[in-house]
Amino acid sequence: MESKKLKQTQRIVLRLFMRGSHENIKRLITKLRPAESAELLAHIRRSDQIRFLQLLFEVRMAAPTIRELPAELAKDLINEFTDDTISEIVRRLPPDDAVDLLAYLPEERQETILNRLTEKERWTLERLRLYEEDTAGGRMTTEYIAFPHETTTAEALEELREKYQKSDLLYIYVVDDLGHLTGILPWRSLVFASGEEQIKDLMVRDPVRIEPDTPQEDVAKLVSDFDLLAVPVVDEENKIMGIVTFDDIMDVMVEEATEDMYHLAGLDTAERVFTPVSRSVRLRVPWLLINLGTALLAALTVSLFKDSISKFVALAVLMPIVANVGGNAGSQSLTVVVRGLALGELEFASQWKAIMKEVSVGLCTGSLNGLIMGVIAYLWYGNFWLSLVLFLAMIANLLLAGLFGALVPLLLKWANKDPALGSHILVTTVTDVGGFFIFLGLATVLMSRLNVPL
Amino acid sequence: MESKKLKQTQRIVLRLFMRGSHENIKRLITKLRPAESAELLAHIRRSDQIRFLQLLFEVRMAAPTIRELPAELAKDLINEFTDDTISEIVRRLPPDDAVDLLAYLPEERQETILNRLTEKERWTLERLRLYEEDTAGGRMTTEYIAFPHETTTAEALEELREKYQKSDLLYIYVVDDLGHLTGILPWRSLVFASGEEQIKDLMVRDPVRIEPDTPQEDVAKLVSDFDLLAVPVVDEENKIMGIVTFDDIMDVMVEEATEDMYHLAGLDTAERVFTPVSRSVRLRVPWLLINLGTALLAALTVSLFKDSISKFVALAVLMPIVANVGGNAGSQSLTVVVRGLALGELEFASQWKAIMKEVSVGLCTGSLNGLIMGVIAYLWYGNFWLSLVLFLAMIANLLLAGLFGALVPLLLKWANKDPALGSHILVTTVTDVGGFFIFLGLATVLMSRLNVPL
Repeated sequence: MESKKLKQTQRIVLRLFMRGSHENIKRLITKLRPAESAELLAHIRRSDQIRFLQLLFEVRMAAPTIRELPAELAKDLINEFTDDTISEIVRRLPPDDAVDLLAYLPEERQETILNRLTEKERWTLERLRLYEEDTAGGRMTTEYIAFPHETTTAEALEELREKYQKSDLLYIYVVDDLGHLTGILPWRSLVFASGEEQIKDLMVRDPVRIEPDTPQEDVAKLVSDFDLLAVPVVDEENKIMGIVTFDDIMDVMVEEATEDMYHLAGLDTAERVFTPVSRSVRLRVPWLLINLGTALLAALTVSLFKDSISKFVALAVLMPIVANVGGNAGSQSLTVVVRGLALGELEFASQWKAIMKEVSVGLCTGSLNGLIMGVIAYLWYGNFWLSLVLFLAMIANLLLAGLFGALVPLLLKWANKDPALGSHILVTTVTDVGGFFIFLGLATVLMSRLNVPL
Repeated sequence: MESKKLKQTQRIVLRLFMRGSHENIKRLITKLRPAESAELLAHIRRSDQIRFLQLLFEVRMAAPTIRELPAELAKDLINEFTDDTISEIVRRLPPDDAVDLLAYLPEERQETILNRLTEKERWTLERLRLYEEDTAGGRMTTEYIAFPHETTTAEALEELREKYQKSDLLYIYVVDDLGHLTGILPWRSLVFASGEEQIKDLMVRDPVRIEPDTPQEDVAKLVSDFDLLAVPVVDEENKIMGIVTFDDIMDVMVEEATEDMYHLAGLDTAERVFTPVSRSVRLRVPWLLINLGTALLAALTVSLFKDSISKFVALAVLMPIVANVGGNAGSQSLTVVVRGLALGELEFASQWKAIMKEVSVGLCTGSLNGLIMGVIAYLWYGNFWLSLVLFLAMIANLLLAGLFGALVPLLLKWANKDPALGSHILVTTVTDVGGFFIFLGLATVLMSRLNVPL
């Protein structure tokens, strides 16, 4: 919702809360869309949030609103509700969202809630819970419709009219006598149908399909490549188990991008802007400690050369430049390669080309930066040999930056790890340790030339 | 397409090229989906790419394939074609994609191509070209269908059967006598219609709509919040101008995430993994030069304290730790806030809370890291005062990291700039310069305590 409208609605709701006019709030709520209620909910005080959700529940809007909330907030709020209320909400959500919602509760409470559902509801949810959250199975919903392939369009229309008049079905799936998925029927075909043809003659054959353990990022890529509204999930016998819809795919795309950005920055994906301080600290400390370790490694490298530094303190002044520019060049290479991997631009065979490219870019930018810094250092210290050392160290460190910036994510990917996870810390360790070692090492070798009175 | 299938198809195509069996390639091509052809195309040599596209063109598959190609590659390839071929391709693409494709050509060549189209085709494209590429207007297609609101469902079906049997229409729009957008009709409603009702009685009223200058990220947020398949773009009189469809929205989401990641790393969004070295260097150098400037600032800070360093070289050994951990903590805060802004988690009123949170996290992690580093430094150098300086400097620098990590993107957003652009360099400048200044400054003040023989 537009920021203006949101602010206005927020003010009205707060005023109504103060007056205790809950009936008026309910009237207002029913005019909002779930995403709008969710946004509003995210922007009011905790105590009001609970009351607001209670009202949403009374007008049967709690389930769709919770579905639109950020995971963190949803979790906090759900845990405040009674078992009764949660069972009601679970019952009204599409099964895939219901499973996600259950996952916010402690294990034993999940069981309590499941025990309150009917056998059939429980079975549907239990089956969905088997799959990892970030796979097709974990993302799919079991709300789809499939007709036997010999159904006539008139029969199909009849059944749709009877049972699915209100449903938000994107496609109609077609199965053969043994229940195997054989095709997809767009709504459009039904509109244009005469009534007598069998749906197998109208369907799109051999549709794109996926298995329940397909990783969600692969599902997203497929759906986006083929501009699909939904993709069916089939078991090893090609029997349809559920579908993943485009709205879930949009969520996946956003999640995957967040994950990459977070991993590059050394953040846990569970964190959000408004995660409580104590939790954020717990989530960030491991990464900062790893980083502290690598920083110590860099300090140890510098300490190898403390004699040179004490003889020639300009080295201490200039050494951060080599490390810093190297770190940034490394980030650039890393980001291009990590994003390229995520977008599938690097699918196979061309890794070598990508590495060579980053090394070449490192060589060029290193030469340019080295030249500029060499000149500046010469103007500053008037020492040709110092400038030469700086020039050479810059080139060498930006070469390292390009090489490791490309190599680290590719190796992680090759080892079936997330190419973004930890790669930034690894690359900057290389450019820090490498940068200090090369710069101070070269300077130590040439110390007799350098150490002229300033 | 799966990596295995892709590799296999690639091998077959290369073999067929070597044999010159173009007819066989054509037969194979017609079995591939556009996204698959595009992927294949991206993975073969340049000379084969041109030949492959030529064959795609002959089997009328060039247009949809080019639509699926990464922008960089599409640009390179398009420019190799003759005006005749390009006009043909432009004619067959949906207007929004045709405009994007034209944009890959030099200005004068665009004119040449436009002049070869019919008056109507040209007018459609000219109108779309008026809008910025990253707005609703730049993203919309003019391929949609709108019926007057008094049309009966039977009339609507009749017209759809006649003219749109083959089209991929997501919704049917409804306009009043003056052409104002009044509602949306899902295909489903037509399926269930009796034939006599007017579409205004079946339509969803007051549909979500946007203006042509709405930024693409806002369009994406709207479409994803409401799980829409498409959203209409209307002019100031509420007359429908075009629609933005979910497949374009998926592209926008991917683009926006890439943009944020790139901007955080100091990269131009025009770059891709396989951008030629010379172009990559040109694109990266400005950022590296800005970074060189900030690194110089840090070096100048260190040089303020060169007397202290030459008296006590341990300072040069330990100072990178303060700056390095500060830089990483800054990246963490920055990434959380930038991503929070992109996902709309921070829409208004809560900026202050976000800043306070990051500062608090900085205080906690700073204390912890400072304590650990203090102990390590004590074990290393056996100097209590040095450890104290390190402890205090770590706390102060991680406070700075949290403060600026949250403040910089919020200020940029407030000034209507991209919150990710340049913010990383700004924050690390603060943590570098600040870290060095606080650590070396404190040490200088306490020099009499520090400078005991080791």
